[in-house]
Amino acid sequence: MSTCSQDLAPLLGVNGTGAADYICGKFSDASYAVDNTYLLFSAYLVFSMQLGFAMLCAGSVRAKNTMNIMLTNVLDAATGGLFYYLFGFAFAFGSPSNGFIGRHNFALESIPSSLFDYSNFLYQWAFAIAAAGITSGSIAERTQFVAYLIYSSFLTGFVYPVVSHWFWAADGWASALRTDDFLFGSGVIDFAGSGVVHIVGGVAGLWGALIEGPRIGRFDHSGRSVALRGHSATLVVLGTFMLWFGWYGFNPGSFNKISSFYTSGNYYGQWSAVGRTAVTTTLAGCTAALTTLFGKRILTGHWNVTDVCNGLLGGFAAITSGCSVVEPWAAIICGFVAALVLIGCNKLAEKVKYDDPLEAAQLHGGCGAWGVLFTGLFASEKLVKQVYPDRPAKYGLFMGGGGKLFAAQIIQILVIVGWVSATMGTLFYFLHKFGLLRISVEDEMAGMDLTRHGGLAYVYHDEDESQKNGIQMRKIESFPTPPSV
Amino acid sequence: MSTCSQDLAPLLGVNGTGAADYICGKFSDASYAVDNTYLLFSAYLVFSMQLGFAMLCAGSVRAKNTMNIMLTNVLDAATGGLFYYLFGFAFAFGSPSNGFIGRHNFALESIPSSLFDYSNFLYQWAFAIAAAGITSGSIAERTQFVAYLIYSSFLTGFVYPVVSHWFWAADGWASALRTDDFLFGSGVIDFAGSGVVHIVGGVAGLWGALIEGPRIGRFDHSGRSVALRGHSATLVVLGTFMLWFGWYGFNPGSFNKISSFYTSGNYYGQWSAVGRTAVTTTLAGCTAALTTLFGKRILTGHWNVTDVCNGLLGGFAAITSGCSVVEPWAAIICGFVAALVLIGCNKLAEKVKYDDPLEAAQLHGGCGAWGVLFTGLFASEKLVKQVYPDRPAKYGLFMGGGGKLFAAQIIQILVIVGWVSATMGTLFYFLHKFGLLRISVEDEMAGMDLTRHGGLAYVYHDEDESQKNGIQMRKIESFPTPPSV
Amino acid sequence: MSTCSQDLAPLLGVNGTGAADYICGKFSDASYAVDNTYLLFSAYLVFSMQLGFAMLCAGSVRAKNTMNIMLTNVLDAATGGLFYYLFGFAFAFGSPSNGFIGRHNFALESIPSSLFDYSNFLYQWAFAIAAAGITSGSIAERTQFVAYLIYSSFLTGFVYPVVSHWFWAADGWASALRTDDFLFGSGVIDFAGSGVVHIVGGVAGLWGALIEGPRIGRFDHSGRSVALRGHSATLVVLGTFMLWFGWYGFNPGSFNKISSFYTSGNYYGQWSAVGRTAVTTTLAGCTAALTTLFGKRILTGHWNVTDVCNGLLGGFAAITSGCSVVEPWAAIICGFVAALVLIGCNKLAEKVKYDDPLEAAQLHGGCGAWGVLFTGLFASEKLVKQVYPDRPAKYGLFMGGGGKLFAAQIIQILVIVGWVSATMGTLFYFLHKFGLLRISVEDEMAGMDLTRHGGLAYVYHDEDESQKNGIQMRKIESFPTPPSV
Repeated sequence: MSTCSQDLAPLLGVNGTGAADYICGKFSDASYAVDNTYLLFSAYLVFSMQLGFAMLCAGSVRAKNTMNIMLTNVLDAATGGLFYYLFGFAFAFGSPSNGFIGRHNFALESIPSSLFDYSNFLYQWAFAIAAAGITSGSIAERTQFVAYLIYSSFLTGFVYPVVSHWFWAADGWASALRTDDFLFGSGVIDFAGSGVVHIVGGVAGLWGALIEGPRIGRFDHSGRSVALRGHSATLVVLGTFMLWFGWYGFNPGSFNKISSFYTSGNYYGQWSAVGRTAVTTTLAGCTAALTTLFGKRILTGHWNVTDVCNGLLGGFAAITSGCSVVEPWAAIICGFVAALVLIGCNKLAEKVKYDDPLEAAQLHGGCGAWGVLFTGLFASEKLVKQVYPDRPAKYGLFMGGGGKLFAAQIIQILVIVGWVSATMGTLFYFLHKFGLLRISVEDEMAGMDLTRHGGLAYVYHDEDESQKNGIQMRKIESFPTPPSV
Repeated sequence: MSTCSQDLAPLLGVNGTGAADYICGKFSDASYAVDNTYLLFSAYLVFSMQLGFAMLCAGSVRAKNTMNIMLTNVLDAATGGLFYYLFGFAFAFGSPSNGFIGRHNFALESIPSSLFDYSNFLYQWAFAIAAAGITSGSIAERTQFVAYLIYSSFLTGFVYPVVSHWFWAADGWASALRTDDFLFGSGVIDFAGSGVVHIVGGVAGLWGALIEGPRIGRFDHSGRSVALRGHSATLVVLGTFMLWFGWYGFNPGSFNKISSFYTSGNYYGQWSAVGRTAVTTTLAGCTAALTTLFGKRILTGHWNVTDVCNGLLGGFAAITSGCSVVEPWAAIICGFVAALVLIGCNKLAEKVKYDDPLEAAQLHGGCGAWGVLFTGLFASEKLVKQVYPDRPAKYGLFMGGGGKLFAAQIIQILVIVGWVSATMGTLFYFLHKFGLLRISVEDEMAGMDLTRHGGLAYVYHDEDESQKNGIQMRKIESFPTPPSV
Repeated sequence: MSTCSQDLAPLLGVNGTGAADYICGKFSDASYAVDNTYLLFSAYLVFSMQLGFAMLCAGSVRAKNTMNIMLTNVLDAATGGLFYYLFGFAFAFGSPSNGFIGRHNFALESIPSSLFDYSNFLYQWAFAIAAAGITSGSIAERTQFVAYLIYSSFLTGFVYPVVSHWFWAADGWASALRTDDFLFGSGVIDFAGSGVVHIVGGVAGLWGALIEGPRIGRFDHSGRSVALRGHSATLVVLGTFMLWFGWYGFNPGSFNKISSFYTSGNYYGQWSAVGRTAVTTTLAGCTAALTTLFGKRILTGHWNVTDVCNGLLGGFAAITSGCSVVEPWAAIICGFVAALVLIGCNKLAEKVKYDDPLEAAQLHGGCGAWGVLFTGLFASEKLVKQVYPDRPAKYGLFMGGGGKLFAAQIIQILVIVGWVSATMGTLFYFLHKFGLLRISVEDEMAGMDLTRHGGLAYVYHDEDESQKNGIQMRKIESFPTPPSV
């Protein structure tokens, strides 16, 4: 008998049970319908981030490697779909399980259940492929395709699901949904995954990029940094806006439900918390973008749109952890610092000759880590209690909540860095050892599209060009480009 | 008096009727609100596929025909909007009607009704323009614009609506919503339209492309196939991802409602079926993409992203028929075979010198037909009963359901191929006869953008180029390009 | 005690109050959940229009100014986010307030309230940044970046919020939500903002573009108009489709709620009105697109896709005012005339040597004004009463409603033009006076990307080009392009 029925039956009088059950059953139906609508469309939004990644990555690499990077983005989604269905979701959320890894619901067995519906799987799959997408950016333009296939499957199918189990599954050892006294009586708050998604993807990319080294020409003979500019800022902006759009699924969607009320019949309920999460997300990104605009203008003398895009995304990556438990004004602080963190990480990367074509390790790893800490500093007591009603409400250090949540957040960073280094770092090391990681110098100079992917992404100069330039029409059709099939 | 009132009134006691009516009226309001929200946003997603088509088509043709193909995609939506409003929707769903064609609700007269709201029209319009979009791909780069205007209007306004009436309207002669004993006591299951949309669009394109013949240079003097590569793989990937995104409106959205319960108060309801449909769709596409990746690698030695995109879309086209009535594991089989079907159809097309710049007939026609058959093989008894509760539950041959559904599915393919050939094939034939179908050789060599659409899609070399190359600034503004207006 | 409780309690009998409160409270929860889901996803759609603007603008300018224009589009959203949070929303909707400007809810203080939730803020923010986006199109390719930063902040933070207060806030002096006898006993109907958004953005752009004058080369020495073609029609089409997609959030979303019933338990409720609004929007755009297609074909001899795109958007801008209160057939008239208005405005602009790279003043200002008038002519009595139940139902002149609404609509146009001219016109004038508005001739010739934004948007000729052309591989990496950081 539901809580609703228990409450309503006595109000309806002596024979109220049947009517209460009937009415409450229909309220329950309505909630399932609304919540699933909400979660499914949120999942579609998160999926659209994969399009955003593909365009951002494509625009950030040189034209000669465009086909390669886009193929990895398509395959993140495709291999991720199969592997996350077969065992990723089971490792992450299979219930009941131990604190380390899930052990049920392989291939969606017993789904839907009272805990999960198909919409939950779809939503979590879209998260898993985002993590893999981050990593592919760090190692772009110099990595063998077979290495990509191996690490991507391993990351989406195992490494990432285990981390998400720890922090997001009801029985994960550090999950915010646990009610027992763990991790300083506080536990970790990583609402939408600054740690679980962004640090995981960023640290994996960091190891890959470190082990295989910078692209040829990225640092010249005297060790000076040389920008290898991406081939299309338009694609970078397109990708950034799509990611922004999708982030409204990523962060507010992480509530999973929208129809939960805080006090029935009141205007303030989970729908407000969802809206507030969209607002904190927006403000953090906007502030980071503006900070980057002026910061870079001071440092370089230019108003640079691609830098602003990266700053914006850094703000989003940072607010992702605390988006639901901080006030809007705090989100502005989050974004401001995130922009500085990104600038600092990029300076550091240049100094140590670390080459990451998408700044992915800096952006997702660096700003993600700042976001995890930020939550430990600025989480509000009131909001933590609302969003995590069943847990001991430890909140932000700067909000008067003491250092326990902050300490738990530090633990999260350490544990994730350790786990991803141990798994992905080792994997990249062995790929390197066996000559499977980096492409040959010849392939790198020529570009992977030509050598591995059947041709270049663009045909700029088809026969119409000759028309335009007033040159006599050549029967170019009789001099065909080599067939691609 | 609603079922809800009939159920609830006695539970509320002697004077329960008024209260039951009141409460049930409000539940009804809530359902309308949720279902329309769900259907409208699904319609918006399906509409976004038109953007996907436009980008996929643009990227798949040569630069000189980009304006032309994009204009057809914009106009599919625009002419489709007017014609489907004026009579398309009436032909398809006007009720009451005979089994062949609808006869009411022209120009949305008497809408909303108890059967249809504006959201239903919008959703079906977005489907209709998708069919026209498929066809425009097959005949790209060599078709007169006026031919396009004629066939597109005819297809969206008449040919497609009639087919959708047969299989989707409550009184269509082969509709899955009929309750009487028809088509082997089974009837056709084509949930979101592998047949109704994809075979229709594909077969129409097949006739157009067959009648006008291949593009100049597509097969060389010795008859060898020559790939005429599209000008931008980036646009192909962009379009593919948008189509993937939109397909979540196409397939799960075809339920039209999400708030229907199977057992009131239970977590398992139509919202679960909607989610499962999104999952089967995802898995079929992912499997097809991976199958194509490795299949093409074996055949050609390349990891080809545009082929993977087409494979993915083939998987989607195939699962569209059975997405709601098959289990997730079956969707993997569906996608695997769809990829092989597409590879096979492409081989066949080359052999018979059939030229289809988008592989549209192969992809939508071939994989669509496989999808219709697949439903006849793998539809699950339990799911058919849930999704089509009012019909005799004949289910898949391989699921122990006998051959009746499979036989009905074969009938669907034959009937659609026959109808579209008789209408669209005839139309294309007469356009050809009257010299309205194919452009001149000169126009084809020069490209249609220059000759018919006022200029090329791209201005690569404006004056900044000279800057970049370090050449002295030319006052190019005093040598203007010819005005386009 | 809610209306629901008052109605239900007596029906439930003597002790019905408690049960009625409980049941009605849960209905209220369900409404909040559905309405917020609806409004949030609508807000996300409106936000996606910013991506549409960015791509439309990028494609419509020359390659050398692409980075510049895209940066303004990113910053519209980012500065808009901060300023609209800090005071824009307060100026617009802060309540209680006077008729001219809002005075509460700065930095979202006291939000959520019984009037507004975070979702309302997010939705209105997305509108505010759209207005700024319109203006940036008019002054593209020749405006100093600092001028952009100044006018954009002023427009989003003050000028636009004040206008939206007048017409949309409950206590605005000309708001359609007022119930007292104002403006000819009618008041203005500008449902989604043909006036509030489009005329504001268009008139602001008009002043900017007029004051700084046409781009170099736009009119040749003899005064003949010279088209400075945008560099990518593909981006124009991409942007247009994204705007179309987003317009489904803009117009139907302006209801803010979808769960309101007109008669409880009936299929016809606000969900139908929302759907109808999506339909009128679609039909107006489609008709305008087709009218432009044939109109331009007659005038220029070409089937021009970018013109069709602009025509389509003109239709949308026009229907935005009356979308919820006119019948679908009237929307067709709206779109037809909108296309003619746009063609006429463009002719006029050429005649007076007004240069607007995006035709933004013509499209948003001209078609927006037509849309405001159209509402005064075609608003239906029945629909006005449903959509604005609390106001005196004055309706369209051509629908038998007399001239009072039409007169009020004219007042709206005059007032907006006056206010925007007084504020934005003055601002642009002083920017001009102080030499802050227009870039130098050298910068304009070279393009702003190179001179102000750190480099060009595209790298067409990276080393793979030499490969493609069969030239010997150059070790281009040792001749690096200048570092961008």
